[in-house]
Amino acid sequence: MKKSLVALALMGAFSGAYAQSSVTIYGTLDAGVSRRTDTDVTAVGKRDNNKLGFRGVEDLGSGLKALFQLEIRYEPDTGVIESTTRPLFQGQSRVGLQGDFGTIRLGRGLTAFQETSTAYEPWSGMPAVAGYQTDLQVAGYTSDPLSAPGNSANRFSNAVFYNTPVIGGIFQLNVTVAAKEANGNAAIVGRGTAAAPQFTANYVPQVAPYSLSATVGQGPYSIYAAYERNAVETKLWSIGGSFKPIPALKLMASYQRQDQDNSVLINPITKAWLVGANYNIGAGMIRAGVGRKTPDNFLNSPAIAKTKQFSVGYDYNLSARTYLYVDAARKKITPAATFNYYSLGIHHNF
Amino acid sequence: MKKSLVALALMGAFSGAYAQSSVTIYGTLDAGVSRRTDTDVTAVGKRDNNKLGFRGVEDLGSGLKALFQLEIRYEPDTGVIESTTRPLFQGQSRVGLQGDFGTIRLGRGLTAFQETSTAYEPWSGMPAVAGYQTDLQVAGYTSDPLSAPGNSANRFSNAVFYNTPVIGGIFQLNVTVAAKEANGNAAIVGRGTAAAPQFTANYVPQVAPYSLSATVGQGPYSIYAAYERNAVETKLWSIGGSFKPIPALKLMASYQRQDQDNSVLINPITKAWLVGANYNIGAGMIRAGVGRKTPDNFLNSPAIAKTKQFSVGYDYNLSARTYLYVDAARKKITPAATFNYYSLGIHHNF
Amino acid sequence: MKKSLVALALMGAFSGAYAQSSVTIYGTLDAGVSRRTDTDVTAVGKRDNNKLGFRGVEDLGSGLKALFQLEIRYEPDTGVIESTTRPLFQGQSRVGLQGDFGTIRLGRGLTAFQETSTAYEPWSGMPAVAGYQTDLQVAGYTSDPLSAPGNSANRFSNAVFYNTPVIGGIFQLNVTVAAKEANGNAAIVGRGTAAAPQFTANYVPQVAPYSLSATVGQGPYSIYAAYERNAVETKLWSIGGSFKPIPALKLMASYQRQDQDNSVLINPITKAWLVGANYNIGAGMIRAGVGRKTPDNFLNSPAIAKTKQFSVGYDYNLSARTYLYVDAARKKITPAATFNYYSLGIHHNF
Repeated sequence: MKKSLVALALMGAFSGAYAQSSVTIYGTLDAGVSRRTDTDVTAVGKRDNNKLGFRGVEDLGSGLKALFQLEIRYEPDTGVIESTTRPLFQGQSRVGLQGDFGTIRLGRGLTAFQETSTAYEPWSGMPAVAGYQTDLQVAGYTSDPLSAPGNSANRFSNAVFYNTPVIGGIFQLNVTVAAKEANGNAAIVGRGTAAAPQFTANYVPQVAPYSLSATVGQGPYSIYAAYERNAVETKLWSIGGSFKPIPALKLMASYQRQDQDNSVLINPITKAWLVGANYNIGAGMIRAGVGRKTPDNFLNSPAIAKTKQFSVGYDYNLSARTYLYVDAARKKITPAATFNYYSLGIHHNF
Repeated sequence: MKKSLVALALMGAFSGAYAQSSVTIYGTLDAGVSRRTDTDVTAVGKRDNNKLGFRGVEDLGSGLKALFQLEIRYEPDTGVIESTTRPLFQGQSRVGLQGDFGTIRLGRGLTAFQETSTAYEPWSGMPAVAGYQTDLQVAGYTSDPLSAPGNSANRFSNAVFYNTPVIGGIFQLNVTVAAKEANGNAAIVGRGTAAAPQFTANYVPQVAPYSLSATVGQGPYSIYAAYERNAVETKLWSIGGSFKPIPALKLMASYQRQDQDNSVLINPITKAWLVGANYNIGAGMIRAGVGRKTPDNFLNSPAIAKTKQFSVGYDYNLSARTYLYVDAARKKITPAATFNYYSLGIHHNF
Repeated sequence: MKKSLVALALMGAFSGAYAQSSVTIYGTLDAGVSRRTDTDVTAVGKRDNNKLGFRGVEDLGSGLKALFQLEIRYEPDTGVIESTTRPLFQGQSRVGLQGDFGTIRLGRGLTAFQETSTAYEPWSGMPAVAGYQTDLQVAGYTSDPLSAPGNSANRFSNAVFYNTPVIGGIFQLNVTVAAKEANGNAAIVGRGTAAAPQFTANYVPQVAPYSLSATVGQGPYSIYAAYERNAVETKLWSIGGSFKPIPALKLMASYQRQDQDNSVLINPITKAWLVGANYNIGAGMIRAGVGRKTPDNFLNSPAIAKTKQFSVGYDYNLSARTYLYVDAARKKITPAATFNYYSLGIHHNF
């Protein structure tokens, strides 16, 4: 009846009709002071993505669970959402079920490849200038080239996310498939012309973008392989591994190859590799890495930058949730710029 | 003293000065896969509005309570706020008092008519394509035509909301009155011309918009009547009722008439009706409905679409908070389009 | 290993890996009805800033604490974020450490001067029309003139915030220093010309903006002094004090001088003063004030407005968190407008 509904809305709902809910608020606030030697500005910036998230799990019985997660991303130095133009829930917005069959979720989030690769990167996939994920580990690849301007480069919108359980204790397969939905891109010339761009504004992909990753881990060894094809049919494959010779030391390496032949005329192939290490010592951890990204046929037609990077970092843990850090990196981006980068900051999980 | 205030701000406040607060976080995350037969795209979309809300109630003694509620709306398939342009708290932002006199709130929220009518609609007012609320149940009416572009069609901003208590256990009256404030509309030609539009940009309403609804419920019977006039002086009245012949079955019907004579030259009158049912069976519920919307004098001047709709749906409850659903609808919008619509998804309250 | 990381992400994290976290949600929802006598509109508006915040403190041992705070600002009458264009976390976004050395934070927030001065203003720094902070107490000064359009006038972005402990129980010093970072300003002509503006779009400040405030409080007496220089090198100094002759009565006064000589040709100096009182009586509090803002050489070149204001207000406490209020103000802004202002509303902290 309507009256009881309104009565509920006005009285019941306010007094705890959802008392059974258990939403967890979580997040990260990372801020620091940094300096690039090719600018004369000491800036307040970040090492990690900043998050404010809401998530929950509901036990449905018989081993089945319902899951949701919503994650705001923001810039603490100016208080804006990430890049000022990204979605409110840039981090992720997903709902799904988890059971013996694995986990299936719908919404928006990191692709299987992008999520997997972060575990084999010495800065844990953080977008730090000293880190390797954004530029080198993914060979500068963009998972979502047909989103609205400013949107993120490593997520699928309008997607289904499936993860198997960890099979035999060692193997997991992850699959992400996006719908062939237009999502507000500006026109992209590609192999067309300005008058007849290859991808018109708000283009509908011809083939559903997808991403696959598989991991095998046993004892101190772990390896992964991944393949992804995006909405402009760029193809990327990536392999990598990690090894712990002693519990305090993790060595890691990865290689990736990006093929943009469907949409790029010059330098369509880009290859990248990195090697890195994490070493736990006392209350701290040392991070180190070196890597390179090389477009094909670079010497003759350098349309895409070539990058060499070396970096070291140190985390000093004040607690399990809070650490101070310093990073130092040298980056040579040919033909764009060569610079050193230094940063000092605080990273707080809540 | 200033020093103690700053000391408080920096020390006390962080350590729980608001410990007495009890904010409840609640929300809905609904995502599914759908297909319209007049497009060739299988899309990830939604059946319900997606919400992330914060609300609280404070007992002031003597039966008096203070209430607040803030509700974010978002699209989980892309992570953006609803329509990317709506207010952050599109759902509602209201504060007020509740006591023996009823409930009075200020801010932004659903009008009395819009909130009442959802209880007499077989998809519970959800904006599902299979549902009837947006297009048929409100006769395509817009409560807030003078808001900024992209704003919602069924809320008042700058408003006072009053609900009586449930009188005699059966009767409730709801009143919403908005201030005559400009709210950023683009110019609307209306009965004017492009050069001299009837409603200029950021127009101040001549008469305060208002909305009234009354409900009477007894045993298995419930009826409502509602009247609303918006900022461009469109008038709408609506009546409806529901009946439960057995506890598991709810039958419902409504009729509405919209009069846009103040601002529209052709087809100013639109009438609509719907009948529907909800039937609980086992762990599930069947939803069904049929409805029609007809502008006056349609055959001679079809400026406004005529709509016929038939739809069925099924909810399978995994718990009190989570269900899976399937919807199927056939919609004939003359002269625009005729299509079937199918969707399959998960609806999770937290 | 990757597999265990994904397993964690998909299983562990959802089941409370952050259980040690304790985020406090807090906020303010203030809405009322108001009228200005120079308009014919009764509006729904606010007396205070509306906030929805998240904050936490983590005990790191040895007297050291990690702090974070994120504060959304919004307009409850329309549900939008403040001014529709400000940062999501307009209130503040800061992280830092607190210990014997005081408190140090990074991010965005009120400058030392702006935060200190609110304690010597009879409307507690609220942006009420009846209040004095925005227009008179800070002499119309803008702490952040080189931010993106719509941004707030009393915060630093990209800043470091340091507060000493309360030394000897009576003295505290507060320092805010911002990085010399560009932050998206539109071009400002200043002492240049339209063709060659003094401050180009996205200008990098020549000198790091900073703000200092010091407070001394003993028994019923409290005084402050503050100095601030912003990114266009406007300089402001301010002094003030408060005195409680009886516990229920707080008298306050302040004086400030703003020097815009670096960027303004006409009337570069503005002076302002206010006196005010708060008087607790029964469950209520009376607020009263009078103040004036005067640009130099006003009679000859009134480029900047001269303001006289008198106002009274009354808070009626329904609880420690909730009060009803009425405000009445008379404001004479020469040459712009003279009006009376009345408002009636509810203020709820959660």
